[in-house]
Amino acid sequence: MTLTNQQILLAERPKGMPDSNTFKFVKNDVEDVKEGQILIKTLYVSVDPYMRGRMVNAESYIEPFKVNEVIEGGSIGEVIESKSDQFKQGDVVIGMFGWQLYYVAGENEVRQIDPSIAPITTHLGILGMTGLTAYFGLFDIGKPKEGETVVISGAAGSVGSTVGQIAKIKGARVVGIAGSDEKISYLKDELNFDEGINYRTTDNIEADLQWACPYGVDVYFDNVGGEISDAVMTQLNTYARMPICGAISTYNQEEPDIGPRVQQTLIKKSALMQGFTVGNYSDRFKEGAQYLGQWLQEGKLTYRETIREGFENIPDAFLDLFRGKNIGKLLVKVSERQYE
Amino acid sequence: MTLTNQQILLAERPKGMPDSNTFKFVKNDVEDVKEGQILIKTLYVSVDPYMRGRMVNAESYIEPFKVNEVIEGGSIGEVIESKSDQFKQGDVVIGMFGWQLYYVAGENEVRQIDPSIAPITTHLGILGMTGLTAYFGLFDIGKPKEGETVVISGAAGSVGSTVGQIAKIKGARVVGIAGSDEKISYLKDELNFDEGINYRTTDNIEADLQWACPYGVDVYFDNVGGEISDAVMTQLNTYARMPICGAISTYNQEEPDIGPRVQQTLIKKSALMQGFTVGNYSDRFKEGAQYLGQWLQEGKLTYRETIREGFENIPDAFLDLFRGKNIGKLLVKVSERQYE
Repeated sequence: MTLTNQQILLAERPKGMPDSNTFKFVKNDVEDVKEGQILIKTLYVSVDPYMRGRMVNAESYIEPFKVNEVIEGGSIGEVIESKSDQFKQGDVVIGMFGWQLYYVAGENEVRQIDPSIAPITTHLGILGMTGLTAYFGLFDIGKPKEGETVVISGAAGSVGSTVGQIAKIKGARVVGIAGSDEKISYLKDELNFDEGINYRTTDNIEADLQWACPYGVDVYFDNVGGEISDAVMTQLNTYARMPICGAISTYNQEEPDIGPRVQQTLIKKSALMQGFTVGNYSDRFKEGAQYLGQWLQEGKLTYRETIREGFENIPDAFLDLFRGKNIGKLLVKVSERQYE
Repeated sequence: MTLTNQQILLAERPKGMPDSNTFKFVKNDVEDVKEGQILIKTLYVSVDPYMRGRMVNAESYIEPFKVNEVIEGGSIGEVIESKSDQFKQGDVVIGMFGWQLYYVAGENEVRQIDPSIAPITTHLGILGMTGLTAYFGLFDIGKPKEGETVVISGAAGSVGSTVGQIAKIKGARVVGIAGSDEKISYLKDELNFDEGINYRTTDNIEADLQWACPYGVDVYFDNVGGEISDAVMTQLNTYARMPICGAISTYNQEEPDIGPRVQQTLIKKSALMQGFTVGNYSDRFKEGAQYLGQWLQEGKLTYRETIREGFENIPDAFLDLFRGKNIGKLLVKVSERQYE
């Protein structure tokens, strides 16, 4: 019996906000599983802001998606057939097989995860790329010292919410910027952030920052770019450090991204901006995952997930990232496990 | 007999390019020399781009000049009277006594320099703040590796010309951007830069950079900011480092300094921008001066000075910095030594 696969392809490169023309749903037969291969059924698909960057045909740290090919991204699946002695039916695996219901993988394309240690979805979030992004960006570039002030934009997202908590573990004062009162409550009441600023309702973000950061800003962990970052940069202390993780406010912008040049501020404050991607730290993922897992076990670190349901909703879930709808990690649940 | 002092005061804070209204010449009696003090006659005055920043009343790494007070800056003078046992008549000293003909200094306000080792003016240039600025900015932030490409803006100035030479000592490919053919010849023919770009005569600086940097840009030592820096940032390699030393193109600008935001570029290239001032490295000045002195002695490092003559010409010499008139260190010679 041949299984029918469902895939979401990049139909055309978006200009501005992606829409229904950007994506194409196709069905086709799942190919045969050859010796050394496994057949995976997708359980969860990760949608992440950086994927917007891969939709355009521009040079970057990662290759652009190809038009008419499956959209790649982090996914978790269950092995439903194995012709490899490294995997057996029922194993849960993680890989970059992306937006499709089934995938025939070679042995080295995926990695097994242990469902008994933590919920499997954490491997796409707090114990996976987003947690590691927070860990390395904050500690390797931001280097917060006890008592320093750390400001985070996109603070209620998957990376931002982790950054704030681990900055608190290190004894920093933590201020989060986010786009709804629900998010601000989450940051302050559940994650113990010192202050939160709702950038959508304030009429003066600089004044809010001055109030929330009476001793200035030592570390600015930037997930959003644009005018929010312009404002934070007016409040820097000498020797401020800015890990530049994302610029989600600008990813769908059709006009050039224009704003105040940063050079004079950097000189006046002897400040540092450094862009990074988590892949830069691949040789230290084990270290990061160990700390994150330990803090999670000790209850010092928590996480939230926003889980949408259904394969057909993946594109819309992806767009939710830019609509600011998610708190914490945004995932799409595609299937239930069969062999649990 | 009372000596008559001449001083140049900040008359008013300039908007845009400083002019004759910015400065006021005054004469007054030199005060008496008290026990523990010395009387200095100014020999050379340093004029530097960073002084433009001190003319505005804005928070920065260094206090603004005060209106109606003498303009401070690095100067070299000769002790013509001493009531200190640490100095004697004829000693040559360096300090921040600025734009005045005479100055009565306390013992700790100035430092003696040895005229037998190198020309005394080098202590305001290659062996002084500008040499140290080049040394620490390039090696501590830029960190060029052998074979990497280092691009320098303001390359024919005092800092830029030193940066290029010491980058060559470390085996880098060096490309300088400057504003006249005479400067480009100086960089290529005298300082052995690999390539030079005259930004005033090119009609496509990005194309020129691509041609001059076939392997991309690993280090960008920025003295100018503005559109030149926008262009260089389109040519960065992954893990590029940018010491941000100055932004002379924008210091006299009356409009806000607006341009392409850098965040997306920094992320795509995992690139670093870091502002700095030489004072950050004051505990390592000795190290820097030793290396610079050694390279100078070995003939690996050369320098040029543009020396204007006459106390009355100090403000105009200062403005020459922004007119791009100087090659190398710009100084004003105020007096001859009397006790040589």
